[in-house]
Amino acid sequence: MSAGPPLTHLLGGLPAAVPFVAPDAIERQTGRALRLRLGANESLFGPSPRALEAMRAALGRIAYYGDPESAALRAEIARIHGISPAQIVIGSGIDDLLGLVVRAFLEPGMAAVTSLGGYPTFNFHVLGFGGQLERVPYRDDANDLQALAEAARRASARVVYLANPDNPSGTWHTGSIVRAFIDRLPPDALLLLDEAYVEFAPPGTAPDIDPSDPRVLRVRTFSKVHGLAGARIGYGIGAAETIAAFDKIRHHFGVNAVAQAGALASLGDRVHVEQVVAAVAEGRADLERLARSLGFATLPSATNFVAIDVGGQPRARALLTALQERGVFVRMPGAPPLDRCIRVTVGPLRDRAEFAQIFQELVSAFSG
Amino acid sequence: MSAGPPLTHLLGGLPAAVPFVAPDAIERQTGRALRLRLGANESLFGPSPRALEAMRAALGRIAYYGDPESAALRAEIARIHGISPAQIVIGSGIDDLLGLVVRAFLEPGMAAVTSLGGYPTFNFHVLGFGGQLERVPYRDDANDLQALAEAARRASARVVYLANPDNPSGTWHTGSIVRAFIDRLPPDALLLLDEAYVEFAPPGTAPDIDPSDPRVLRVRTFSKVHGLAGARIGYGIGAAETIAAFDKIRHHFGVNAVAQAGALASLGDRVHVEQVVAAVAEGRADLERLARSLGFATLPSATNFVAIDVGGQPRARALLTALQERGVFVRMPGAPPLDRCIRVTVGPLRDRAEFAQIFQELVSAFSG
Repeated sequence: MSAGPPLTHLLGGLPAAVPFVAPDAIERQTGRALRLRLGANESLFGPSPRALEAMRAALGRIAYYGDPESAALRAEIARIHGISPAQIVIGSGIDDLLGLVVRAFLEPGMAAVTSLGGYPTFNFHVLGFGGQLERVPYRDDANDLQALAEAARRASARVVYLANPDNPSGTWHTGSIVRAFIDRLPPDALLLLDEAYVEFAPPGTAPDIDPSDPRVLRVRTFSKVHGLAGARIGYGIGAAETIAAFDKIRHHFGVNAVAQAGALASLGDRVHVEQVVAAVAEGRADLERLARSLGFATLPSATNFVAIDVGGQPRARALLTALQERGVFVRMPGAPPLDRCIRVTVGPLRDRAEFAQIFQELVSAFSG
Repeated sequence: MSAGPPLTHLLGGLPAAVPFVAPDAIERQTGRALRLRLGANESLFGPSPRALEAMRAALGRIAYYGDPESAALRAEIARIHGISPAQIVIGSGIDDLLGLVVRAFLEPGMAAVTSLGGYPTFNFHVLGFGGQLERVPYRDDANDLQALAEAARRASARVVYLANPDNPSGTWHTGSIVRAFIDRLPPDALLLLDEAYVEFAPPGTAPDIDPSDPRVLRVRTFSKVHGLAGARIGYGIGAAETIAAFDKIRHHFGVNAVAQAGALASLGDRVHVEQVVAAVAEGRADLERLARSLGFATLPSATNFVAIDVGGQPRARALLTALQERGVFVRMPGAPPLDRCIRVTVGPLRDRAEFAQIFQELVSAFSG
């Protein structure tokens, strides 16, 4: 048989790499079910009961295509943010929206700027759409905004990615600092502001941005505080012209109808969100105490995870492996300086107790 | 405020168009709920009760990300087709897979071939990824395979789209004719064979294709006979090298976890699928009798819809509008010669009776 139709030059030149090895893949590789799933920053406090009820009801209409405009959900997001539905795009998770933004703004061959060791799926899309990646090391375990702005100017970047609060470090900048950062970017660069974890952050972390400012697209998700990771739904807020441009290329029927119903109902349950935020804050303090008791520092976190500084990449890797052998899934950030840490999702009390016991045993064994 | 970051040249040059006006959008435009939803070829016979049960159960794990490799579903599809999971890609509906194939194989500036008036979402992706569209008129209300092959050779096409059975006509070619067509395509063209409706077609409609043949990618969906349109899930079968290439660019976490569970369970309920196929065949005959009784011909259909030839585009458009005013959603194919028809989804007996009454009244009024 012939070699067949050729792939595009762009695709033919890409490395064979996926952004993440998923927990399910780890289970298949090891042949063991995970006992504690603390590596994907899912909400182990679960979704709102109202979201569950709405999703069960939505299954009754699953034979129908969902609304490709997600009109009801966009109306509610617009109401909450005091903006227009025309300033909102819905996608099948932030990952989907990252791809859309890169495709819309990053001219092939041009540069995108991000932090070295930042969210891999952004990088995946930049390479996948033919862009060049400029990566800026973290500084004091936080995104180095000055260096990011300088790199953006130097490389004439078209897209700049910033997660605030940050993943995988958990650190954050205040909203006013992020605002000042926007003004230091080149005028033809779009800031892709990933606020996946913003609900867990102190007030003032989300910058006050005019939603009609074309220089920024902010993205949020129902995968974290809302506990709907499996539903695949998130949203972006940007200038109406940007959102209209997405309509020319986006996958219009890409968002599951049950997910739309669940997201809408979850927005209506502020009490649940507040309870999760409070429980996560308590659990984060708990994990920080555990780390301290074992002689480890933790990075400041405004998220639902804690990066524990275990003193170096070799020990982080060894602990990661040892934890995995005990059925505990956590992650190690992918690049220095953060790869001296393991990143642990904050779960409920029972999960934390189980993690504490296993982690203490492993650390003792390593020290012994 | 400045004009902001520029869109890519490609996106900047695209028309503001969406592939479809959705039924939900029609309801918003008219301010009325649709009484009969017969324009999107959804399965009005609903999903398998087993699929519903599996989806309800999957909601219990909705806080977890789904499996980005859809391993369980791919294993079952592989078992059914006697192929390897490495020859299967899962996407959030065929629309997602069409975009993926175009992105992977259609070098910007090069040609894709399809039928004039064929599935608009394919065209949307071709333009969205910078390709050129070559459109070949239908012949005798069917895809004109000889002209498609000639156009592909003449235009040095990289992707050729064929829906078999066809949408919006409902007509089909036998599998052996499609096989012969593959051999007449240029060697560096990929055939994108859309088999969304193949379960409704006579035996022998799905061509016997070596799954490792790199010249073909066939796509199927859970939106039609399986009744899961709102779940957004479909699959593609192709050479393992093609599927592996998709992994370099696809939206890995794009498919809802509940959809994966529902699709898997639905594959296990052959009885439901057979019942739907039988009920659709009966309903199709019913619609054909209705059309005949009103003096209209119908196009042969191997799908869950019937194209009724109402005698010309003006009358088709008038009937479409009049039906919509009565709360009945159907579609009119977008180009000659099929735009002399209205396309009506086959629903259960009660829906058919309601449609028959309204349609008869309208046709009488038009003739009177």
